[in-house]
Amino acid sequence: MPKDDHTAATTLTDAELRGLDAHWRAANYLAVGQIYLMDNPLLTEPLRPEHIKPRLLGHWGTSPGLNLVYTHLNRVIRNRGLDALCVWGPGHGGPAVLAGSWLDGSYSETYPDVPRDAEGMARLFRQFSFPGGVPSHVAPETPGSIHEGGELGYSLAHAYGAAFDNPELVVACVIGDGEAETGPLATSWHSDKFLDPVHDGAVLPVLHLNGYKIANPTLLSRLPEPELDALLRGYGYEPIHVSGDDPAEVHRAMAAAMDDALDRISLVQESARSQGVTERAHWPVIVLRTPKGWTGPAEVDGLPVEGTWRSHQVPLAGVRDNPGHLAQLERWMRSYRPEELFGADGRPAPEVLSCVPADERRLGATPHANGGLLTRELPLPDLDAIAVPVDKPGVTLHEPTRVVGTLLKQVMKDTRTHRNFRLVGPDETASNRLKAVYDVSGKAWQAAILPVDEHLERHGRVMEVLSEHLCQGWLEGYVLTGRHGLFSCYEAFVHIVDSMVSQHIKWLKTARGLPWRAPIPSLNYLLTSHVWRQDHNGFSHQDPGFVDHVLNKSPAVVRVYLPPDANTLLSVTDHVLRSRDYVNVVVAGKQPCFDWLSMDEARVHCARGAGIWEWAGSENGGEPDVVLACAGDVPTLEVLAAAQLLRRHLPELRVRVVNVVDMTRLLPHEEHPHGMTDFEYDGLFTTDKPVIFAYHGYPWLVHRLAYRRTGHAHLHVRGYKESGTTTTPFDMVVRNDLDRYRLVMDVIDRVPGLAVRAAAVRQAMADERTRHAAWIRAHGADMPEVAEWVWDG
Amino acid sequence: MPKDDHTAATTLTDAELRGLDAHWRAANYLAVGQIYLMDNPLLTEPLRPEHIKPRLLGHWGTSPGLNLVYTHLNRVIRNRGLDALCVWGPGHGGPAVLAGSWLDGSYSETYPDVPRDAEGMARLFRQFSFPGGVPSHVAPETPGSIHEGGELGYSLAHAYGAAFDNPELVVACVIGDGEAETGPLATSWHSDKFLDPVHDGAVLPVLHLNGYKIANPTLLSRLPEPELDALLRGYGYEPIHVSGDDPAEVHRAMAAAMDDALDRISLVQESARSQGVTERAHWPVIVLRTPKGWTGPAEVDGLPVEGTWRSHQVPLAGVRDNPGHLAQLERWMRSYRPEELFGADGRPAPEVLSCVPADERRLGATPHANGGLLTRELPLPDLDAIAVPVDKPGVTLHEPTRVVGTLLKQVMKDTRTHRNFRLVGPDETASNRLKAVYDVSGKAWQAAILPVDEHLERHGRVMEVLSEHLCQGWLEGYVLTGRHGLFSCYEAFVHIVDSMVSQHIKWLKTARGLPWRAPIPSLNYLLTSHVWRQDHNGFSHQDPGFVDHVLNKSPAVVRVYLPPDANTLLSVTDHVLRSRDYVNVVVAGKQPCFDWLSMDEARVHCARGAGIWEWAGSENGGEPDVVLACAGDVPTLEVLAAAQLLRRHLPELRVRVVNVVDMTRLLPHEEHPHGMTDFEYDGLFTTDKPVIFAYHGYPWLVHRLAYRRTGHAHLHVRGYKESGTTTTPFDMVVRNDLDRYRLVMDVIDRVPGLAVRAAAVRQAMADERTRHAAWIRAHGADMPEVAEWVWDG
Repeated sequence: MPKDDHTAATTLTDAELRGLDAHWRAANYLAVGQIYLMDNPLLTEPLRPEHIKPRLLGHWGTSPGLNLVYTHLNRVIRNRGLDALCVWGPGHGGPAVLAGSWLDGSYSETYPDVPRDAEGMARLFRQFSFPGGVPSHVAPETPGSIHEGGELGYSLAHAYGAAFDNPELVVACVIGDGEAETGPLATSWHSDKFLDPVHDGAVLPVLHLNGYKIANPTLLSRLPEPELDALLRGYGYEPIHVSGDDPAEVHRAMAAAMDDALDRISLVQESARSQGVTERAHWPVIVLRTPKGWTGPAEVDGLPVEGTWRSHQVPLAGVRDNPGHLAQLERWMRSYRPEELFGADGRPAPEVLSCVPADERRLGATPHANGGLLTRELPLPDLDAIAVPVDKPGVTLHEPTRVVGTLLKQVMKDTRTHRNFRLVGPDETASNRLKAVYDVSGKAWQAAILPVDEHLERHGRVMEVLSEHLCQGWLEGYVLTGRHGLFSCYEAFVHIVDSMVSQHIKWLKTARGLPWRAPIPSLNYLLTSHVWRQDHNGFSHQDPGFVDHVLNKSPAVVRVYLPPDANTLLSVTDHVLRSRDYVNVVVAGKQPCFDWLSMDEARVHCARGAGIWEWAGSENGGEPDVVLACAGDVPTLEVLAAAQLLRRHLPELRVRVVNVVDMTRLLPHEEHPHGMTDFEYDGLFTTDKPVIFAYHGYPWLVHRLAYRRTGHAHLHVRGYKESGTTTTPFDMVVRNDLDRYRLVMDVIDRVPGLAVRAAAVRQAMADERTRHAAWIRAHGADMPEVAEWVWDG
Repeated sequence: MPKDDHTAATTLTDAELRGLDAHWRAANYLAVGQIYLMDNPLLTEPLRPEHIKPRLLGHWGTSPGLNLVYTHLNRVIRNRGLDALCVWGPGHGGPAVLAGSWLDGSYSETYPDVPRDAEGMARLFRQFSFPGGVPSHVAPETPGSIHEGGELGYSLAHAYGAAFDNPELVVACVIGDGEAETGPLATSWHSDKFLDPVHDGAVLPVLHLNGYKIANPTLLSRLPEPELDALLRGYGYEPIHVSGDDPAEVHRAMAAAMDDALDRISLVQESARSQGVTERAHWPVIVLRTPKGWTGPAEVDGLPVEGTWRSHQVPLAGVRDNPGHLAQLERWMRSYRPEELFGADGRPAPEVLSCVPADERRLGATPHANGGLLTRELPLPDLDAIAVPVDKPGVTLHEPTRVVGTLLKQVMKDTRTHRNFRLVGPDETASNRLKAVYDVSGKAWQAAILPVDEHLERHGRVMEVLSEHLCQGWLEGYVLTGRHGLFSCYEAFVHIVDSMVSQHIKWLKTARGLPWRAPIPSLNYLLTSHVWRQDHNGFSHQDPGFVDHVLNKSPAVVRVYLPPDANTLLSVTDHVLRSRDYVNVVVAGKQPCFDWLSMDEARVHCARGAGIWEWAGSENGGEPDVVLACAGDVPTLEVLAAAQLLRRHLPELRVRVVNVVDMTRLLPHEEHPHGMTDFEYDGLFTTDKPVIFAYHGYPWLVHRLAYRRTGHAHLHVRGYKESGTTTTPFDMVVRNDLDRYRLVMDVIDRVPGLAVRAAAVRQAMADERTRHAAWIRAHGADMPEVAEWVWDG
């Protein structure tokens, strides 16, 4: 633990102080300008109503605090030659971060149509929160950003994700006191127990207490300081408190706090890196307490504004119509003395820029915030060396996730030097049967390690914590800064991060429209312990709906795969780990599963995304009477068992078996890049034959994907319909009408003109279902012919 | 703040200690029996393989700790005559809580087929985690429970929700150290700033540190005790630490800790209730540190098990086949000396029951855990007194949520005595224009209140915190204990609680199948600040997918309403507040919206759920040429504007306007209780005419609901298709092809045999869209004919 006695108090020279204050005033001026002005940016003439935007949208309250942090980060980056990135947590902090990057020149380099001069300032102002312009929060459009400020709660997790395996990087993270109330942020503080001071960079949280949210005080700002101090120490940090409302005093205190914090960080890193200290470090956190809307109007219409929630958005709302407000705005803007800050040409004065670092050190220009620039190809092993041998389909059994564990182990091994791959999951890596990775890397853990523990390592790259939010947030931060990863999760509980993945997809969609943003590694999910094999854990663990959630989002970004066996899972995993700018959802079981395809067959099948399994059907080259389609490992098993029953009982029936790996293949070609043309779709599914589709999840999803197809009226889908409970694996499919017997009955019900004999077969199937129900009542287990079923194809 | 010097050390008599230990041993015995045995429950003969369940499923690790808490809660409830409820957070804690309620007799009263005797014990054992039996976690089936232990993170929020407005209740809450890592739990600790010691009951958290999750140590258990202590004090609590592995010592320490905690609680309550103390209270928390799998096998096959993660589930896995394991299990079970604990008839010995309270004081019998028993009808005002007057449709404008604010204010007022209604939301009550409620009740707030603050109250019943998880968790706890509430939320960010609402729906579905569970008030959402009016906040704030998520769940439980104006919102809100056992999702705007229906018309229309608006169409009693359907306020506006354009430009076209309030009406009658019959559906939508459906959310949802209808091939849906950005309100609908001009073009494209003139109209519409795009580029605002459109019907 670093000692406190190392820090010499920072003393700013007058020139330094003037420079910092000039930068901060300039940024404040620019923030106000963005919220209000569409013309007259330098106030070269008196403010008139027509200079004011018709609709005032934006958030002033958080801006002066963010500007202060930007200014002081500039100083320490420049003074110390830091490699730094900042995650800006506070919602709607756009005006400040845009101001900072316009001042440091990175904005104009990124957007040459917004130069660092009067014309550019006018554009900067006008475009803000304006149709066709830029959002009011930090967003993909913002240079230097990896964090969207729209939905709150994920800044600190993103910051840690960015710091992992970036040993030379300092990731500052401004946490608003509003955001600090969210659950994800509250547990993100514990990320310090996972940060390796040797191989990871540093995270410097700046908890900004401006006291108010939209309409309420914030919890943390109303704690007595000793209580807040205890909380942060309890989270494992050493707080450095900065409070005030006198700019010069706050500048001095903030400069000292920054230096103190960075000295402590250096000391921790040096202890760990040079002196072999392995005791958990206590990292600094800066607690910055300044008024909300600081330097804005103290009162408006007789009500206090500065230092209250009333400064959250637009402090003066009636500027266009109320001359008093207009005059007050002009006084406010002139209080920053813009004539000292900007030349007549609008360029920032040298004093304003005296604290600004150069080149890629600038917060708006760091390549870490445009992670694709730094992405190194992931070394992926030869799949043939890992694949399970399959001479004949349906003879051997493997646990698909265990097989993919061998692939992940190899990736983990081959990234030992560059450390650009992480596996995250909520305490489930072993449960999900991926534990081969432990042969190469243990689980990251900086807290105490006891002799009884297994696979915990100070330098591990497997991340386990019982928080899906942290897993997701860390991995987002990691891929946004250009590295690779996989999130393995119980299928049901990945809904915990529904909103986070939505925001990440929105980020990717927007980023793809920005030519300066380089593609980043995809965010990959391996959802296992899935709905059909949660028979023992029961109803609360049964939910296949994440796929539905993701498929509502931008087709350009989302991909969904349901590989039916071990080799197809290998092929899909290889594919998603190579891909860029996607959110890939892979659903696969961890229980023993028949091997259907050899590695070569798997490659071809997965590349097609959907295909006829001729060996499983009985169409013999002709037109089928019926199509049995399947997507997902358990539905595939039931469809093959149904095909086998049909072959035995109704041998004259021509059955086609279609397996779908890539769900988006079902969408129209016009709606998704992977969507089949009608020609392709009709070739697989026919236009007029009954299609019995056994799907892994909610059955209506398949209708939602395929409703435009010619044959849709003949499509009959079986899937999970929320009939869950604690039972046996086969009973789960029976309860949801996805079982082989039901599928055979569905075929008989839908194929016209079947022989009379079919009625007897149908009755036999119904009898089997009845017998099953009685059997599990008596034995608490599945009937042997189901549990020990084998493919005889 | 209570002083520490009031607590006299608790001294247990030998008899008390023996009784507590006997109860605990009995519970441990029953927990092991549930995991392993299907016969020979009392070990009246040597254990043989056939006594063992074929599939061993269950979680031993957490059980002894939970049993300890159950035992000691029994003691203090009995000694002090407490009205108490316990929320059992640890996942898979089923065996313990089932053991406790079987011992206190409540289990057998609830389930007479599982009597408190040898036969009942055998059933208790066999049914556990068995097909057709009970889940391995605490669940709706568990007497005394309001909290499902399947998905972790919500126990403490549920406990606070149960305590609000239950001044005589003590809600104990066991928090596992695994669950404690989740975000929702991490922020739930801050609920202490919202608990009113005068009108609310007490929450007594018991943080149970058994050290391990499935496969890892837990974060909090590996903190040095001073750091953990600081964390809990930082959260505002006074920790009482109990640690050990010697049963007698732990019993003594736990009894003293319980007495200490309850004395402190009494003191806090007395200070606030009798002495008028309003300073925020620091409530006690018990930190209980005992070994995972305590009293279970110390070692198995040479590896340590007790006190490690290896005892998480089934410590001895090979009992049926491995005679060594079988013998070890028998020794383990006999170590509890069952012959002292149960008579030959299986009934618990008097000593075992010496700590157990009577009647409704028993944890398994408290009516608070079966909240419907305590539900008092919510007084609902006369809607006519609140309704907006509507003589003619489309003349006046109101903000629907502001109007419903008046209704909520009245409800808040009429529940002042019984305090059985709460309004929750993440800092958005005012933003969502519901602030009329503040005339009656402020926002609950126990932290410092400054002169500048507005509407903060020590005794308020409006709950605002910037955590959707807390809002949801509190409200769940509140309605599960029989009270009423409403959660108002930004539509996009309600996805944050997707997984929580799934679990609540699953709870309700299961609870409805249990005749002993009385119906509870519904969980009601008012989603506003919706996708179409987040033009200014931009893409991150635009997401209408919560409806899709909810509609995947049990039709018996979920209801979705999209009232198109103020009076329909009033009618729907009145309806959902009266309802029981549902999750009701109401989506409505806060921006000024035309009033279409009078209160009487609104009542009729909402009762039907969907209907023809004859005044808006032009079919004049005949068959229509086309149906314009709409659901949601903005789509309704666009459809009416389109109808007006059609009336003007193509007066001969017979247009029917259908408005849908209740989305589940579109489902087949067989699939949802509200679903229309085909006869009804066809009557509204026809079987063969084009239907242009303007829907609030993702358009494919309507297809997913209606794909079985005869006319489905003629259904063409417009809605939000993730084309979001920062822009104007009308540009949002244009970008997503939901605008009036596009709808008119859709009509022209789909109605066969239109006059040549239609082509010119179509071109005029396309021109308007082009003109719009140019206009907003130039003005940053919508065209006046759109912004100032009026209905001329």
